[in-house]
Amino acid sequence: MAIKLNERYLKNFVGTHELCGMSGAVQTAHEQLTAKSGMGSDFLGWVDLPETYDKAEFARIKKAAAKITADSEVLIVIGIGGSYLGARAVIEALKSSLYNSLKKPTPDIYFAGNSISPTYLNEIISLVDSRDFSVNVISKSGTTTEPALAFRVFRDMLVEKYGEDGAKARIYATTDAARGTLKELADKMQYETFTIADDVGGRFSVLSAVGLLPIACAGCDIDALMQGAGDAMREYSVPDLDKNPCYRYAALRNILYRKGKRAEMLVAYENSFAMMSEWYKQLFGESEGKDKKGLLPVSAVFSTDLHSLGQYVQDGAPLLFETVIDVKTPQKDFFLKECPENSDGLNFLSNRNMSEVNRKAFEGTVLAHVEGGVPNIILEMPELNEYELGYLIYFFEKACAISGYILGVNPFDQPGVESYKKNMFALLGKPGFEAERAALEKLLNE
Amino acid sequence: MAIKLNERYLKNFVGTHELCGMSGAVQTAHEQLTAKSGMGSDFLGWVDLPETYDKAEFARIKKAAAKITADSEVLIVIGIGGSYLGARAVIEALKSSLYNSLKKPTPDIYFAGNSISPTYLNEIISLVDSRDFSVNVISKSGTTTEPALAFRVFRDMLVEKYGEDGAKARIYATTDAARGTLKELADKMQYETFTIADDVGGRFSVLSAVGLLPIACAGCDIDALMQGAGDAMREYSVPDLDKNPCYRYAALRNILYRKGKRAEMLVAYENSFAMMSEWYKQLFGESEGKDKKGLLPVSAVFSTDLHSLGQYVQDGAPLLFETVIDVKTPQKDFFLKECPENSDGLNFLSNRNMSEVNRKAFEGTVLAHVEGGVPNIILEMPELNEYELGYLIYFFEKACAISGYILGVNPFDQPGVESYKKNMFALLGKPGFEAERAALEKLLNE
Repeated sequence: MAIKLNERYLKNFVGTHELCGMSGAVQTAHEQLTAKSGMGSDFLGWVDLPETYDKAEFARIKKAAAKITADSEVLIVIGIGGSYLGARAVIEALKSSLYNSLKKPTPDIYFAGNSISPTYLNEIISLVDSRDFSVNVISKSGTTTEPALAFRVFRDMLVEKYGEDGAKARIYATTDAARGTLKELADKMQYETFTIADDVGGRFSVLSAVGLLPIACAGCDIDALMQGAGDAMREYSVPDLDKNPCYRYAALRNILYRKGKRAEMLVAYENSFAMMSEWYKQLFGESEGKDKKGLLPVSAVFSTDLHSLGQYVQDGAPLLFETVIDVKTPQKDFFLKECPENSDGLNFLSNRNMSEVNRKAFEGTVLAHVEGGVPNIILEMPELNEYELGYLIYFFEKACAISGYILGVNPFDQPGVESYKKNMFALLGKPGFEAERAALEKLLNE
Repeated sequence: MAIKLNERYLKNFVGTHELCGMSGAVQTAHEQLTAKSGMGSDFLGWVDLPETYDKAEFARIKKAAAKITADSEVLIVIGIGGSYLGARAVIEALKSSLYNSLKKPTPDIYFAGNSISPTYLNEIISLVDSRDFSVNVISKSGTTTEPALAFRVFRDMLVEKYGEDGAKARIYATTDAARGTLKELADKMQYETFTIADDVGGRFSVLSAVGLLPIACAGCDIDALMQGAGDAMREYSVPDLDKNPCYRYAALRNILYRKGKRAEMLVAYENSFAMMSEWYKQLFGESEGKDKKGLLPVSAVFSTDLHSLGQYVQDGAPLLFETVIDVKTPQKDFFLKECPENSDGLNFLSNRNMSEVNRKAFEGTVLAHVEGGVPNIILEMPELNEYELGYLIYFFEKACAISGYILGVNPFDQPGVESYKKNMFALLGKPGFEAERAALEKLLNE
């Protein structure tokens, strides 16, 4: 019923006294978070969200999901960054990386507005043009380029298909509670709206309406998801390293970073976890990667990637440590029958479940990598269901905040993301950027 | 008609004299490759493959693809590592990351046998059990655990569905020319077979039958793919750094590595390139990641990941340089109409093609990242079609070989991949591994 932190495979790399040496920093970080006295403390709404979330809105989310499931073969989710990754990650982890291909009672879900690729946009259009669909547009301001461009397109398609009134009933806007162009439009057009809170940043928003509406549309039990997160919130509320595996994980990864490890590889043994790893990469990369600091977050799915990145992990430059998600019971198992002729010589694997083979691959890999000098942190989960995944999400969110404070950065801002946007606007001739444009074009052409 | 190496955004990071300083090492690497005198020279079959490939087999590949297209709604491709990534990467890059969801005259293609996840295996089974399908099993030995287990399952399904004879006509085995359990079985059962050459390692095999059969089944023009690779082979045959952009790229990435960059991020601006980046990660990671050396290969799709990893790249620890794939013309474009009310304020983007916005995002990002201290190597391609992708594949393969020799490693072996396999076999009780098993179980339980 909880994430267990298995430190067995760290003993050659981190001494017990080193954790003692971190307890002060962890205590300080905990106080900063609790007293809201640290950097970025305007963005701590996620901390008690599993308890304080808007219950009326939560009920509306479930109702909207039921309506979408009833009247739509496809849901288009329009958003980028934190307004995209969390929902996709949870849906794939709980349902399948092949969710859209599988038979199911819930709509297909495609994500748009997360790139500026015209090829991809054309493809999504072709996937919905002969089917009933709805749109969930997720943007705090309504002016972020990628989702705003996509929303223009799919809104037009809805109006063409269902008329102005029919379209209104198929657009769900997750946006600011009071201001911004999307909020204004939604009010004017009477779209159903859900709130992106001011104090919950994009990468911490999966357990708000941002993530919950698409997740509910996929048929996931969002009550259980929130319950898992809530239990995690209560478990991880104490500063004592001996009693708080979440803080302990934050301390351990900072110890490894200070000892010269430069990248953390999040490893899972299920393909369906790949997008959760992308979510983790945003959470940690955007929170810690600043002021020329921070662990580089990377990921792999084993055993698949043991046949691609495995060589590097085992024997390449000693940059990495691994954090491995160890799910004890798979969502579905498969019994391996004996094959009479045994031409492949694999009958020694027969008459047991495939999950047992996957487990031995995991154990064998951890032992091999540890012998190769790669520290391994193991996060044990009983299974990959809504409750446990909610637990894990909160585990990572809080570990990330504590980790950022230990590192000495503001875990809740992302000033570096503005740099490319400013340049892009200038190069595209956005009014007000004329001076920058001339300077940038000079750089491009010199 | 070729890859252009744009070095404009390296000038703050690499001096011209530094490239001169690498010319000797590059010359030596070139001679090792040409004279087959370097490490791993038993595995150089890929070097002239675009010219020397078996034309009769090539014709059989096209014929088999036509038959599969005619009699199958689904092709299951069973393979792992190099027997999986190349085909999937090329199909997604040329056709779509949503290939299976889109309407098309060619079969759906699902990849199996690339993990030990029972959940995933069950899903693939559910996707074919009511449809006509064929299987392409790709394994040199026939005993690699992941594909062998999957092949047992899908072979049984075929026999149950079509009878023993019907199944035979739907199984295509890509394997060793002369020996191994899969070859023996294929001969006995009279499967159509294609060859995995002894001198072409898995990660260099995409332009052999390993990659070509699935790629042809997706409706890609494999003649053009080989022609592009062949033209690249001829262009990149000279050792002079001024005339060989492939070698120049190899030299530049080694210069950056020696200056302290520890990871190379391959960046593309099309979602459909994501699996090509996975292919690149295997190619370079497995070739260079040994003897505690090598650049860590990572990847991103922009602008999507500018909203997740962008902050780290811009302002995180200065570990990274970027190699950016700059495709000049997209596969499909999209014209951005004006929106009368302009509520999102984006009408400054109207009345032009979306590809232009994507291009400005690319230019703006490069300038921002360079200003943030991140060297950028740009690989320019006219478009993403069969010919150009064949060119690019060969570019990376040869750059990887030269790069590995410059680094002082054997670019063609992967000794580290054996470590986990040995442990896994022992833990699973494979006959002959009894002593190792006891030692490993002690480690797991102490």
